[in-house]
Amino acid sequence: MPSEFELIRRHFSPRTTQTLLAGGDDAALLVPAPGHALAVTTDMLVEGTHFLPGTDPRRLGHKTLAVNLSDLAAMGARPRWAFLALALPRADDAWLAAFSRGFLALADAHRVDLAGGDTTRGPLNLCVTVIGEVMVGQALRRDGATPGDDVWLSGCTGEASVGLAALRGEASLDRVDEVRCRERLEQPQPRVALGLALAGLATSAIDVSDGLVADLGHIATRSACGIDVHWARVPQSSALAGIDAAHRAAAILGGGDDYELAFTASPANRDAVRAAAREAGVTVTRIGEAVAGQTGVRVLDRGGIDITPVGGGFDHFG
Amino acid sequence: MPSEFELIRRHFSPRTTQTLLAGGDDAALLVPAPGHALAVTTDMLVEGTHFLPGTDPRRLGHKTLAVNLSDLAAMGARPRWAFLALALPRADDAWLAAFSRGFLALADAHRVDLAGGDTTRGPLNLCVTVIGEVMVGQALRRDGATPGDDVWLSGCTGEASVGLAALRGEASLDRVDEVRCRERLEQPQPRVALGLALAGLATSAIDVSDGLVADLGHIATRSACGIDVHWARVPQSSALAGIDAAHRAAAILGGGDDYELAFTASPANRDAVRAAAREAGVTVTRIGEAVAGQTGVRVLDRGGIDITPVGGGFDHFG
Repeated sequence: MPSEFELIRRHFSPRTTQTLLAGGDDAALLVPAPGHALAVTTDMLVEGTHFLPGTDPRRLGHKTLAVNLSDLAAMGARPRWAFLALALPRADDAWLAAFSRGFLALADAHRVDLAGGDTTRGPLNLCVTVIGEVMVGQALRRDGATPGDDVWLSGCTGEASVGLAALRGEASLDRVDEVRCRERLEQPQPRVALGLALAGLATSAIDVSDGLVADLGHIATRSACGIDVHWARVPQSSALAGIDAAHRAAAILGGGDDYELAFTASPANRDAVRAAAREAGVTVTRIGEAVAGQTGVRVLDRGGIDITPVGGGFDHFG
Repeated sequence: MPSEFELIRRHFSPRTTQTLLAGGDDAALLVPAPGHALAVTTDMLVEGTHFLPGTDPRRLGHKTLAVNLSDLAAMGARPRWAFLALALPRADDAWLAAFSRGFLALADAHRVDLAGGDTTRGPLNLCVTVIGEVMVGQALRRDGATPGDDVWLSGCTGEASVGLAALRGEASLDRVDEVRCRERLEQPQPRVALGLALAGLATSAIDVSDGLVADLGHIATRSACGIDVHWARVPQSSALAGIDAAHRAAAILGGGDDYELAFTASPANRDAVRAAAREAGVTVTRIGEAVAGQTGVRVLDRGGIDITPVGGGFDHFG
């Protein structure tokens, strides 16, 4: 087995453009831009828990970084540095070559330096820490929504969870739709440009990784308000058209892993939000509003009747 | 099983004093001090690879953070923020309580904020990222040694590896010596204060985690010079007095995990180095010098004869 050092050199040799010192020392040295706060997040992905054994390593490399960049997007931060720690059961040169290709292609696309890391022997485990910059006071926190704010969603949700169901043989889709849904699951595109365009404009934001209702619930809790979502306004992916209504609603409202941004903004800024989305090349939809006098998230039908799924029940969506 | 969120709240609730936003959002927000570079390092510890199954969780919590703080010490950086990602085979409340006690006690001692992290299910894996600050230009890199520099070592080496041998039943020590050696192995004290006192003074530094000769070799390689170590000057722990000479030399020159600092400084700064060590409450010993015209590390006896161990051989130390 090539040594840890040799493996790292071969596949992860620093290709850094904005790091004072990367690799080969006790720590990396970075120089942050003056006047900025740093947004830092760390995510650990474990085989069998977060991805299936045998997952294509190039796609896994992409997703490992993507989920972290999505967290920075939800803060309105510009990603600059990544650190990758990985435990591998054995030194598999082909696996590492493909994994690093997926990881570094996404890093390059977002001008992120892989500035350091660690490699060791053990059950497959991927831990990424990313550091981004945002002007102090412009960060998109979860606790800034106020009653009356619009609630917005980028793109659409549900495709990733239907992609997972198809992968497990639990959903049957047209070939084209299946490819699209699996692409969403395995190659999520973090909404970095949208997050940057919304910094200082949105009042709160979160990335939709646990499911739309659950993640809006985090904003509601942290902002001490309620959120009403109007089901008729929630975007429905055409790729899900072949799924029955209850499962479709479950995927759209409860499915994770889409890595869209859900955010709030003042109604006075609707045009500005649409302009920000155009600038970022992403569609956004106004799906509801923050409300006073209640807690948590309600999903309402056209008549204003509360059809919020309780305990996983999507009976009202038949 | 309590949820991931509940476990984190119970044992790792943010006790932060210098973090703009910690926990409960997509990322933590930090505001670095103006004019500083950030030193960032990440280490992954895996059960069975880095520590034995059944290791006392309080001591493991301490060591998990200590090895990262040691890396920042070797950069001359002041540690400020830590991020902890952990995979656990099951939600063991007592284990987490003890682990967090060890981790947070060391964090508090060094005024480090646990600013974020991730908890997930999987084979036991601990991944820590720490961020520290150092004035640009004062960082202790590995590549700054020049021929003529003194080579220094803090404390002494060898105790941790003898502690591991005792734990495995491969070495027999007096009770007092065994306690001391196991303490070094399981509760290493990162030389943070010494690193800070040496910033801008030492020309290079590394923490001794792989073994004294191996780690000095990293300085020699990165600094493009050789290093001569005088065996008679290398501090010998009294706890190792009962070990035969060859094994003692192997532990002192080749044993890892002591987390002392090895560093170089100009001979003009000997008094300043000694004053820095006094300020930090650590002993330092001048064990050799950086030399021109050769590569790598040589260990010399009193007569100047090269007795460098080759291929693990310590025959000359009998």
